[in-house]
Amino acid sequence: MNYNDEFKSLQALVDDYLKAYFDALLRNIQEKSLVQSMAYSAMSGGKRIRPVLSLATAKMLNGSVEKVMPIAASIELIHTYSLIHDDLPAMDNDDLRRGRPTNHMVYGEAMAILAGDALLNEAFELLFKTSLNSGAGMEQALKASIIVAEAAGRSGMICGQVLDGESEGREISAEALKQIHQKKTGALIKAGIVAPSILIGASDEEVDVLSQYADAIGLAFQIKDDILDVVGSADELGKPIGSDTKNLKTTYASLYGLDGAKSMLSETTNKAINALERFGDRAWFLKETAFYIANRSH
Amino acid sequence: MNYNDEFKSLQALVDDYLKAYFDALLRNIQEKSLVQSMAYSAMSGGKRIRPVLSLATAKMLNGSVEKVMPIAASIELIHTYSLIHDDLPAMDNDDLRRGRPTNHMVYGEAMAILAGDALLNEAFELLFKTSLNSGAGMEQALKASIIVAEAAGRSGMICGQVLDGESEGREISAEALKQIHQKKTGALIKAGIVAPSILIGASDEEVDVLSQYADAIGLAFQIKDDILDVVGSADELGKPIGSDTKNLKTTYASLYGLDGAKSMLSETTNKAINALERFGDRAWFLKETAFYIANRSH
Repeated sequence: MNYNDEFKSLQALVDDYLKAYFDALLRNIQEKSLVQSMAYSAMSGGKRIRPVLSLATAKMLNGSVEKVMPIAASIELIHTYSLIHDDLPAMDNDDLRRGRPTNHMVYGEAMAILAGDALLNEAFELLFKTSLNSGAGMEQALKASIIVAEAAGRSGMICGQVLDGESEGREISAEALKQIHQKKTGALIKAGIVAPSILIGASDEEVDVLSQYADAIGLAFQIKDDILDVVGSADELGKPIGSDTKNLKTTYASLYGLDGAKSMLSETTNKAINALERFGDRAWFLKETAFYIANRSH
Repeated sequence: MNYNDEFKSLQALVDDYLKAYFDALLRNIQEKSLVQSMAYSAMSGGKRIRPVLSLATAKMLNGSVEKVMPIAASIELIHTYSLIHDDLPAMDNDDLRRGRPTNHMVYGEAMAILAGDALLNEAFELLFKTSLNSGAGMEQALKASIIVAEAAGRSGMICGQVLDGESEGREISAEALKQIHQKKTGALIKAGIVAPSILIGASDEEVDVLSQYADAIGLAFQIKDDILDVVGSADELGKPIGSDTKNLKTTYASLYGLDGAKSMLSETTNKAINALERFGDRAWFLKETAFYIANRSH
């Protein structure tokens, strides 16, 4: 199968799952406005990279796609809540996200705060229920859930957001920049790969090389983001370009120059691909994803 | 044992547990500012009514206080996050909470949003880890966790906050007011009683009467809050009085008058006490708590 077709097919599985999930919630009249605000952001045409990687990891390990779907979905819900809160006036104060008005522009700040809270809560509710229904796999399901919770929480993504905020307007070291992104963006991407592999019983060695792969693509993702902020087009990005420079942010492009960042990107992409050697051809989709991340135009 | 002594002794157990919890987190240098902001609100002298009720419920049912402590603590963390987000300028815009500056007044809005997010995340991380370490009790632990997650989420507390916001500035029916408070305040108090009883294996009948008790004290708690907003003193409340009237909020006092609200409070208190009949003297602390809620001055 060709990469784009496989990506679209996995993406469609995620979209269908989330659509059915929110449709079911919307049948409850009482919380309609809240769920509408949650669904507005969750169903806003995101690329679904994290959950697609979860499903692809399961397939590569000969595991069940259905089995890892709740974990994949929970990670997308967490990603969505983090974007809503990130866009708030008190945070990044962004009006546009994926080419559409941000949640608080449509529903107001109070609702955006609550919709973000509710999406985070929903992700964990889904993981608890999935764990409870896992029968003999309950322990694995809980271990996978803990991976997700740790990646999202105060020593993972939220810590990254705090460090990012604290670094604003001042130059930071390459090491500090890497730390920020490992936590802010990398942790949840990594959880999207590691948690499913734990859920379906991968060996420690398999989890270890998948962690290396995940670290590398997480880093590559951020380097590419920084490059796109310099050379991308606003239309394709769905947000204003040059905002990093405007906000005096330290980026891979500002630290290493555009060419330096580009060569770092290709090095990191190679590292990701090499980590998957032991899986041979079964790793084709994850390998292609590393190329996709490096070559995307938005 | 006398009620105040028992309350203080259970409250001290909760305080000690949370203090040790945050002290351990604070040993991590990287996320220090975030954890400081989380701890500022979590250790700000709250009454700990929810977790104290959890521990008292366990004692009444001859269950282990240590066993239910993580659930009790997780509910207090969720309560704390909800207060931080509630106080934000985009929400209630409160400068004071428990007589101290609110989280965003001290740490800024962005950090307050993230600290709230992190406390919610932390609560569930704690519940996942507790469930994983529950051995043969794993299924009960998960069922109890789901009770907490549902009470806190989009059909529980957060729904209540949305309904509350939507009702602002317009008169609402008695039924709507009850719904709002059942969700906004009642749901989490109820989870603090029901989840521990499920965790320690109470019978369906026991859970049922404890639910009735919890519904009644949740309602009583809110009626008393509304009464205090009219007759309390700002010093004792730690927040300005009369703010409901100023904000044109429908309250039990505005719907039924002060005397009507007072007689409703005593009726509801009796209902709570009667629900506990089957537990006899073992229910002394929960019964006294119903009186405490009705008679508190702040």
